[in-house]
Amino acid sequence: MAVYTEVTDEQITAHLARYDIGELHALKGIAGGVENSNYLLTTDAGTYILTLYEKRVDPADLPFFIGLMEHLSRHGINCPLPIPMRDGATLGTLAGRPAAIISFLDGFEVRRPQPDHCSQVGEALARMHLAGEGFALTRRNGLTLEDWRPLFERSKARADTVQPGLAAMIEAELDYLEKNWTRDLPSGVIHADLFTDNVFFLKGELSGLIDFYFACNDLLAYDLATCINAWCFETNHHFNTTKARALTRGYAGARPLEKGELDALPMLCRGSALRFLLTRLYDWLNVPPGALVTPKNPAEYIAKLKFHQGIARSSLYGLEA
Amino acid sequence: MAVYTEVTDEQITAHLARYDIGELHALKGIAGGVENSNYLLTTDAGTYILTLYEKRVDPADLPFFIGLMEHLSRHGINCPLPIPMRDGATLGTLAGRPAAIISFLDGFEVRRPQPDHCSQVGEALARMHLAGEGFALTRRNGLTLEDWRPLFERSKARADTVQPGLAAMIEAELDYLEKNWTRDLPSGVIHADLFTDNVFFLKGELSGLIDFYFACNDLLAYDLATCINAWCFETNHHFNTTKARALTRGYAGARPLEKGELDALPMLCRGSALRFLLTRLYDWLNVPPGALVTPKNPAEYIAKLKFHQGIARSSLYGLEA
Repeated sequence: MAVYTEVTDEQITAHLARYDIGELHALKGIAGGVENSNYLLTTDAGTYILTLYEKRVDPADLPFFIGLMEHLSRHGINCPLPIPMRDGATLGTLAGRPAAIISFLDGFEVRRPQPDHCSQVGEALARMHLAGEGFALTRRNGLTLEDWRPLFERSKARADTVQPGLAAMIEAELDYLEKNWTRDLPSGVIHADLFTDNVFFLKGELSGLIDFYFACNDLLAYDLATCINAWCFETNHHFNTTKARALTRGYAGARPLEKGELDALPMLCRGSALRFLLTRLYDWLNVPPGALVTPKNPAEYIAKLKFHQGIARSSLYGLEA
Repeated sequence: MAVYTEVTDEQITAHLARYDIGELHALKGIAGGVENSNYLLTTDAGTYILTLYEKRVDPADLPFFIGLMEHLSRHGINCPLPIPMRDGATLGTLAGRPAAIISFLDGFEVRRPQPDHCSQVGEALARMHLAGEGFALTRRNGLTLEDWRPLFERSKARADTVQPGLAAMIEAELDYLEKNWTRDLPSGVIHADLFTDNVFFLKGELSGLIDFYFACNDLLAYDLATCINAWCFETNHHFNTTKARALTRGYAGARPLEKGELDALPMLCRGSALRFLLTRLYDWLNVPPGALVTPKNPAEYIAKLKFHQGIARSSLYGLEA
């Protein structure tokens, strides 16, 4: 959760004067989201989300994130649309923080997705990848292959306190991935964090994608691998083949996968599992005093990584090369 | 803040089926509120607040709180209105907790109230007191004179770690109040917690009162005293006579104060200041591990109590007896 930066009535009233969306009706801090402060904002003109970008977000990245939401919205993707101020700018300053007002999307996250949800997510991800073509800005993935070992070094000494043998297991996986990783696959703008809490459904239909604050340029199939990890395991960490089949086929129906992408899928799933294992491990070992957010247990991604290590053929994910 | 109890999409969908407010559009946890879990709920029919009552609320008190909001709404007070289920009940169970869906009030708290806000709050409080007449249920104030000493006993040993001499100061104040407190004044239903975050304004006009979860039967002028403490001190703890005059005159314009109430005002302000000092002191000394809420510093109410101890005549609060 949280609201890290508090906004006074004077501040929000002055801020709204720069917009064309009428006067303030209500402003309520939203629980949820670990990076930024989010408020539900109601004005004469309707309901919006007000986001204040906190320290973990580099202000230099904001034009990419904001511009991407505008680009995707214009190209038919149901995602939050930044609202421009009277002078056309979409990024302002409020309570000392960079701030944007974005459209409010109806819908609700599905905590226990069914195959039909997975199929819709796969299709939406592929459509997002296609819609991202032609977006002018680029952003390097700050959590890709080269970043994993330095990140691991910061947790290495205490990794075995989480699970005996974990440090050696990660070390071996890094060796494997550094040797086998490929960049010779279709790339473009990826969401990079399309977990269940970032996809809204309304009456069974996917109604929108949110939270583009990890979006970057990278391999498109790596984004699919992240979705496989996020959507196709049960809470006991068992892999659900039916869901994976629905997800990958939903994706391929909108954007057919190349043979190279299919062949690379087990490795990409390993890489994605390691990426989330490493960030969770770091956060788990470094809970700041007074933290408002409970860190996620890295054990989930240890199990997922081990699963993918045992996969020899992509067909297990539901598609034949 | 917080959302203490998480609600899944299946749970909220099943719960909404008992109501006549259409299907789910969105459900977002709200930051803010220290007692219960609050969600912003949007359905086909509009926007609501979903409240799950947490452990600090005694389920036996819920009919009083819910019934009071219904009674006050029916009698012209702009406060949240509990929405009945198809079977007429307003209190259900969701995610293992007692739960109610109440109407959403537009408006926003004023962090730095001006005299005009204070005047409106005074009038609204008086109107609430008048509207409370005829409400059938009663609830004892669980934080009144008899409760203060037992509450103090739980903090006494460590009170001086907060401020040297604090234990003796509270002890002397308890002696004074136990000797001088009166019950021989008009009583009725009081809000008992009408701080700035529980009053909404919209474009300068008071738009509603919320959070009736401390409401009880007690002296009406004690409620006014609590508002004086909450609304008429600056952040440096200096008393603002202009605001107090606006507040008390706003109140008296809707419900004239009896001479006995006016005479008792300094003592009631002392009692109310001590009540909030004692709960804040206890919370300050007993932060549970993993707390989601930062406790409020008791020093603010030490300063307020000391101010009132020096007041001999009620006229300083803005009204002549």
